[in-house]
Amino acid sequence: MSHTENTQASTMERSNKSAREIFEDVWANPNRAPFGFGTKLAIVNVDPQKSYTRPDLFPKTAYITDPLQIRHIDRISWEARRKNLPVVWTHVAYMENAADAGVWGTRTNTPDSLQNIKRGSQRSEFDDRLRIDSAVDAVYVKQMPSAFHDTPLNSFLNWHRVDTVVVTGGSTSGCVRATAVDSLSHGYRTIVPIECVADKHESYHFANLTDLHLKYADVVSVDAVLAWISAYEGDR
Amino acid sequence: MSHTENTQASTMERSNKSAREIFEDVWANPNRAPFGFGTKLAIVNVDPQKSYTRPDLFPKTAYITDPLQIRHIDRISWEARRKNLPVVWTHVAYMENAADAGVWGTRTNTPDSLQNIKRGSQRSEFDDRLRIDSAVDAVYVKQMPSAFHDTPLNSFLNWHRVDTVVVTGGSTSGCVRATAVDSLSHGYRTIVPIECVADKHESYHFANLTDLHLKYADVVSVDAVLAWISAYEGDR
Amino acid sequence: MSHTENTQASTMERSNKSAREIFEDVWANPNRAPFGFGTKLAIVNVDPQKSYTRPDLFPKTAYITDPLQIRHIDRISWEARRKNLPVVWTHVAYMENAADAGVWGTRTNTPDSLQNIKRGSQRSEFDDRLRIDSAVDAVYVKQMPSAFHDTPLNSFLNWHRVDTVVVTGGSTSGCVRATAVDSLSHGYRTIVPIECVADKHESYHFANLTDLHLKYADVVSVDAVLAWISAYEGDR
Amino acid sequence: MSHTENTQASTMERSNKSAREIFEDVWANPNRAPFGFGTKLAIVNVDPQKSYTRPDLFPKTAYITDPLQIRHIDRISWEARRKNLPVVWTHVAYMENAADAGVWGTRTNTPDSLQNIKRGSQRSEFDDRLRIDSAVDAVYVKQMPSAFHDTPLNSFLNWHRVDTVVVTGGSTSGCVRATAVDSLSHGYRTIVPIECVADKHESYHFANLTDLHLKYADVVSVDAVLAWISAYEGDR
Repeated sequence: MSHTENTQASTMERSNKSAREIFEDVWANPNRAPFGFGTKLAIVNVDPQKSYTRPDLFPKTAYITDPLQIRHIDRISWEARRKNLPVVWTHVAYMENAADAGVWGTRTNTPDSLQNIKRGSQRSEFDDRLRIDSAVDAVYVKQMPSAFHDTPLNSFLNWHRVDTVVVTGGSTSGCVRATAVDSLSHGYRTIVPIECVADKHESYHFANLTDLHLKYADVVSVDAVLAWISAYEGDR
Repeated sequence: MSHTENTQASTMERSNKSAREIFEDVWANPNRAPFGFGTKLAIVNVDPQKSYTRPDLFPKTAYITDPLQIRHIDRISWEARRKNLPVVWTHVAYMENAADAGVWGTRTNTPDSLQNIKRGSQRSEFDDRLRIDSAVDAVYVKQMPSAFHDTPLNSFLNWHRVDTVVVTGGSTSGCVRATAVDSLSHGYRTIVPIECVADKHESYHFANLTDLHLKYADVVSVDAVLAWISAYEGDR
Repeated sequence: MSHTENTQASTMERSNKSAREIFEDVWANPNRAPFGFGTKLAIVNVDPQKSYTRPDLFPKTAYITDPLQIRHIDRISWEARRKNLPVVWTHVAYMENAADAGVWGTRTNTPDSLQNIKRGSQRSEFDDRLRIDSAVDAVYVKQMPSAFHDTPLNSFLNWHRVDTVVVTGGSTSGCVRATAVDSLSHGYRTIVPIECVADKHESYHFANLTDLHLKYADVVSVDAVLAWISAYEGDR
Repeated sequence: MSHTENTQASTMERSNKSAREIFEDVWANPNRAPFGFGTKLAIVNVDPQKSYTRPDLFPKTAYITDPLQIRHIDRISWEARRKNLPVVWTHVAYMENAADAGVWGTRTNTPDSLQNIKRGSQRSEFDDRLRIDSAVDAVYVKQMPSAFHDTPLNSFLNWHRVDTVVVTGGSTSGCVRATAVDSLSHGYRTIVPIECVADKHESYHFANLTDLHLKYADVVSVDAVLAWISAYEGDR
């Protein structure tokens, strides 16, 4: 074989662009084929809890990207519920001794450390601006990034014959990304309404939107989700 | 409550830095506490197959970041195996009709499309420079990004009482990232030797190394992995 | 509270009936509400491999319950495939060193021990009487009882929008039972055609059919499956 | 090939013995090699909730096999906790609309129907005789038979480097069986203390103990678990 290591050099594309600039190019590409919506969607709202949504209370862990994020999340959840489409909410919370925080409990131990979002604490509470109907919506406590990991989410979606998952919440570079990857992996078309996801740093936010849009999901405007729900006529 | 939407504005940190510059800052931070190695590691080599490692054969899908990547992967796998530490190899391959490619089979259908890495094809073959000992190493075919998804990896590691997973392969922004997130989620300390992972674009590569190093794993030099294996004295 | 341990005595129903007699009573009960078929089924054939189906070759591990079992499995698989309904085949096989057999590799080590069904061995081969179309059917190697455990089965069924799983194969008290429990757990209606499952001992066979019929699945005649497939008109 | 269907007849062993008689034979077999305990165990108590443990309150769904079952469960959990060995409790509960009950919500709808064990209801409460230390023990709500299905149990055990799972609770033929099969499948040595599991009918109880003891677990006296815990000297 004439192929040898000697002939190889790095082929990695170089660029001085910021992650935002790269995302803007990727998102504007008219030739990208979308995954598209399927026949029945669910809204999966990942960790819209005070620890992440209320910088006034928790300035070191909370962040706002789009100031209307919570309003948009609430709106699409409300409209989906009206059409009997499943709405799911997850929040992160750990045991008092953080025995369920795994590796995440090992590095730091400050009030802002992840493992110190205790069950029942204010940090674990959903944002008050969200209208969660706990008689109808599924609510899961989770410990790890993906909303699918160690929760009933996949069985729930499967039973309700959902084929499309709309992911909102935060962070874009953390739990949203992990949830979207698992959503695709389990066989769902995956939609990320850009106004509904947030991160504390634009580079993390846009770099992950790029990965999502290129590989795993359709990054769309929240209006596209609202339009789909509005046109939905129920289970065939 | 005085808290209203009116008081909110985006808090997202802005930056014109490239993802590479941001990673270099994050990686150089002397105050970051590492997750650290545990007591027994496994090497999990994610998709070092010709479709991704041989640009001479597959110029549209393969890429080289560090020209010595394959040599490094082979070296740490060899050294781990000598110490009876588990070595795992995954490669992506699909059914002839791509019935197992899920959403990934829906957008394009060219020879370079993901779902056209067929079982038994050259694209699915491991790189010839790798010394895989199929009598000892675990080898899994996978369909989705994470090496944990729909494979026996977690049960295998658990049975062998592994607590630390070293992830290599590609792409950094795809299967390596997804595998590392799942590794942490399942309860493993996770190590990414930087010379052993690759991507086609530096922004994707470095942005994901940043996420991994901040949240999920220790990004280290391959020498740190070699040193740990060298010092390993077997199951206590 | 007046409730104390002193007041308790065993309430467990006693019976000298054999498991066969108990199943016959349960199965004949006209008041039992069936789970029923849904809108799209898949046939999941669990381990119809020579180790279990060929007593002439492997008298210590193979068994025949209904002499026509293999013919029935082949028939419903053939009819399902003709209607573009998914057909799945699993077989058990382990690495040469049984490193993937977990606890099962620890107790005995004879040619008939489970962990010695090696990959590529005759014991791992599907029964020759089965017409498996490997270009269309999904084929999975598995290590553990359930066809869902550590395989792509659930993602595959979800993607193909299956809501009903027909389980065949053996043993009734082992891999069939485990697969049926997982099928229900993941959200599928589950059907067990009685002529298509087998076990080496009638007590194990009928006791598990009782559990399945009472809790997890509909135990039906294979004719009921054939009739459903015959009436199936495709995805709505 | 001379092998034809004509040559086959049922090889299934026939027997008029009851399941109890068969279990007594299997359990008394001195030649059976045990799986054995490993190096660190967890106690996993499956659904010891009033719906199943209090026939005075719920005569149609509760049952008592060994009158001292609850006392034994409490005792081994207490002793394990004292040695810093993980103790886990699961209970079944569903959403108000049973949207998370899957197939199980489809057949009947009486107060005693499974899907009507509502979150927060008396039926979902743990038996008052159990001393559960919610600051230390892991407590999971589950919907499906196995304590591993859609819960954090596997990640939790893995993180705590448990290699042996002791399963208690009920029913033997339902959630205990399913949990034990999943425990083995995930790579754990599995122990079932016979006094700690219960079922409403002896045939179901003993038939499943037979399957467990032959294939998946060691059925032992609770004294064997107490002795092991007593001798445990902590993580090596």
